[in-house]
Amino acid sequence: MVNGVFIILDGLGDQVNKQLNNKTPLEAAKKENIDKLIKYSEAGVLDTVGPGLVPGSDTGHLSLFGYEVEKYYRGRGIFEALGSDIELKEGDIAFRLDFSTVDNGVIIDRRIGRNDFGLEELLKDFESIKEKIEKEYGINIIIKHGVEHRGVLVIRGLESEKVTDNDLHEENVKVPKILYKEDKAKETAEVLNKLIQDFNSFANNNNINKMRKEKNIPVINYLLIRSASKYKELDKEDKFYNRYGVKSIFLANPPMYLGVAKYVGMDTYKPLGTNGTSNENLFSFSEAAVSLKEKYDIVFIHIKGTDSLSHDKKPLEKKKFIERIDRELIPKLVDNFDLILITGDHSTSSILGRHISDPVPVILNYENNRYGFVKNFSERKCVKGTLGRLKGTDIIKIYLDKLGKYIMYGS
Amino acid sequence: MVNGVFIILDGLGDQVNKQLNNKTPLEAAKKENIDKLIKYSEAGVLDTVGPGLVPGSDTGHLSLFGYEVEKYYRGRGIFEALGSDIELKEGDIAFRLDFSTVDNGVIIDRRIGRNDFGLEELLKDFESIKEKIEKEYGINIIIKHGVEHRGVLVIRGLESEKVTDNDLHEENVKVPKILYKEDKAKETAEVLNKLIQDFNSFANNNNINKMRKEKNIPVINYLLIRSASKYKELDKEDKFYNRYGVKSIFLANPPMYLGVAKYVGMDTYKPLGTNGTSNENLFSFSEAAVSLKEKYDIVFIHIKGTDSLSHDKKPLEKKKFIERIDRELIPKLVDNFDLILITGDHSTSSILGRHISDPVPVILNYENNRYGFVKNFSERKCVKGTLGRLKGTDIIKIYLDKLGKYIMYGS
Repeated sequence: MVNGVFIILDGLGDQVNKQLNNKTPLEAAKKENIDKLIKYSEAGVLDTVGPGLVPGSDTGHLSLFGYEVEKYYRGRGIFEALGSDIELKEGDIAFRLDFSTVDNGVIIDRRIGRNDFGLEELLKDFESIKEKIEKEYGINIIIKHGVEHRGVLVIRGLESEKVTDNDLHEENVKVPKILYKEDKAKETAEVLNKLIQDFNSFANNNNINKMRKEKNIPVINYLLIRSASKYKELDKEDKFYNRYGVKSIFLANPPMYLGVAKYVGMDTYKPLGTNGTSNENLFSFSEAAVSLKEKYDIVFIHIKGTDSLSHDKKPLEKKKFIERIDRELIPKLVDNFDLILITGDHSTSSILGRHISDPVPVILNYENNRYGFVKNFSERKCVKGTLGRLKGTDIIKIYLDKLGKYIMYGS
Repeated sequence: MVNGVFIILDGLGDQVNKQLNNKTPLEAAKKENIDKLIKYSEAGVLDTVGPGLVPGSDTGHLSLFGYEVEKYYRGRGIFEALGSDIELKEGDIAFRLDFSTVDNGVIIDRRIGRNDFGLEELLKDFESIKEKIEKEYGINIIIKHGVEHRGVLVIRGLESEKVTDNDLHEENVKVPKILYKEDKAKETAEVLNKLIQDFNSFANNNNINKMRKEKNIPVINYLLIRSASKYKELDKEDKFYNRYGVKSIFLANPPMYLGVAKYVGMDTYKPLGTNGTSNENLFSFSEAAVSLKEKYDIVFIHIKGTDSLSHDKKPLEKKKFIERIDRELIPKLVDNFDLILITGDHSTSSILGRHISDPVPVILNYENNRYGFVKNFSERKCVKGTLGRLKGTDIIKIYLDKLGKYIMYGS
């Protein structure tokens, strides 16, 4: 039996940077272990969603799993909810939720200083007010806190998710009301605005926020919501196992990624001691992957730090983080797996601080492969590899063939 | 007028092989004539059915002819029948048939020792039993023997072809009954099971088999059937000539390939003295091609041996066979045709003994082309060529343009 590991380094691809002597962070990084591997690997680049399209992390992952986003993408909210262990029911409307600080209708801090002190207690106190709204509209409202300012909101019992966000991704601007985009969504907008308003009134007079003020950290008094998405379970025959005949598990830390994997029907696992940041405990990932390899055909590994450092415009730290991945994540995987793929879900520019459409490099290592031409793992070198430039949804099919679980068309 | 030859070497692409000093059979082969040609050719690689998908020989050919398999592929059986010169009628159900040896319900030899001694006589004797079944069900049954153990079965007058195979592609296992996959196919399964049962009872007591036993060759007492396929004639406007405006002929030996070509409306010809094996008479192909070039815009040539040697896991013999193609097939074609294409219908691993999804190399030689970068015809070198990585259905359009029969889109 062939054991496969499929490594996704979030936002791996980047732009050429003058600070790095006209190299990308990946090019500038010293990565002995990956480069040893690439010498005998097939290499190429992937347009995860399609040439010129800027992928999200959600659509990038769906594509790498082989699901065409045009057909399968229904918005990010449901992935956040699934990844936060909320059991979604058909028709549930899910949102990404950020706890934030608003003063006089103006957004002061979108992330409550990334400090969640007292947040759980605050939500407990809010319970009775939330219940009043639930009764009034005959609905269920689930608010779940994740890490720092992050959370999920799910509403069960409303018809349409077609409403605007109130998160403008900016600070020092007035927070807008939620608006409905179709008549059927009028009640959804009404419920959301009431929930936000009631939370704000409640929180402004709450003891927790007095304590936060004393501690000089931003108060928690506002709900920013975005990425509305209505849940519909994936058809049974479309689930990853039924579609491809392989058992797979997805290792990651942040809920959203675990949610995408759950959505397509993979098992998921958050390795112990991981945190989804650039201080990631990379050893935990390789240990977990090896311990799971006998039970699964494919172990997916998702590492978030590369993307966060790009968003924070830290190309040098991104380079160093890649070097640490090379030292701490890769060796044990190379020793234990027969089929190794390394790629990203999209490129993120550490100059622009945003996702960009440039393809991501990919390498594929297995026995008797058509290796050649590429000696360093990088955005530009991989273009020269034997895989060429492929669409994101193609790579899983190629991978399955190498795993011996090929899709034959014809006879 | 430009004369075009389009050469398809079956299962041409392969994996890198340690026995060949980490080369593929094609890479390891000395091929002076092709390499002389490639220096001034465009080169690339083709995913005949699509990246990551493992093509069959049937779907690989359909794609090279420009027919999208999702739309045009209806199963292999009809190609076997057409290639065996059976005149199919709308609604006929065709199967690949293998004469085989079963003992006590267990399959002993799927290929009657590849020895068809007495088979024709046996089928003549079986005629009256077959007629009884035809009368009982009001249908027609055509059984036609090809070469060695191979044959075709066609049933006219039944509704559905949705039945299971009874060929498990394995020996020393129990032969299963034919099952229906939809209610409409109940009668089809019944007829097939009766035919198989009656043939078995009849053959076990037949004189021919006594003689085969005396000669120590496996008896012919069982019908293994697979690849059910219902015939529907290709729409007139979709026939090769009507679609592309070129007259073409397809030269091959094995019936299935001739059948695919007939299906799309090409003329076909089996060159004299050919046998479809790795002992192929290659001269016959080039002689026939040259003799036909005035009558046709494109002469297709299909050579089977490369694939058979891969299935038999003989990389060294595959290499030698390619060297023989270079010496015996190519020179006369180079001297006589202005437009030369060489490719495969799919890759076949001579390590795994099965079709694989890796693309096949392609070269295209004609006057004033954009040649460059590639000096050897191989899976990996062709990646560097000016054609890049293309989908199988694209190549015929490119070819037609070079033939002066281009498809213009716009004005």
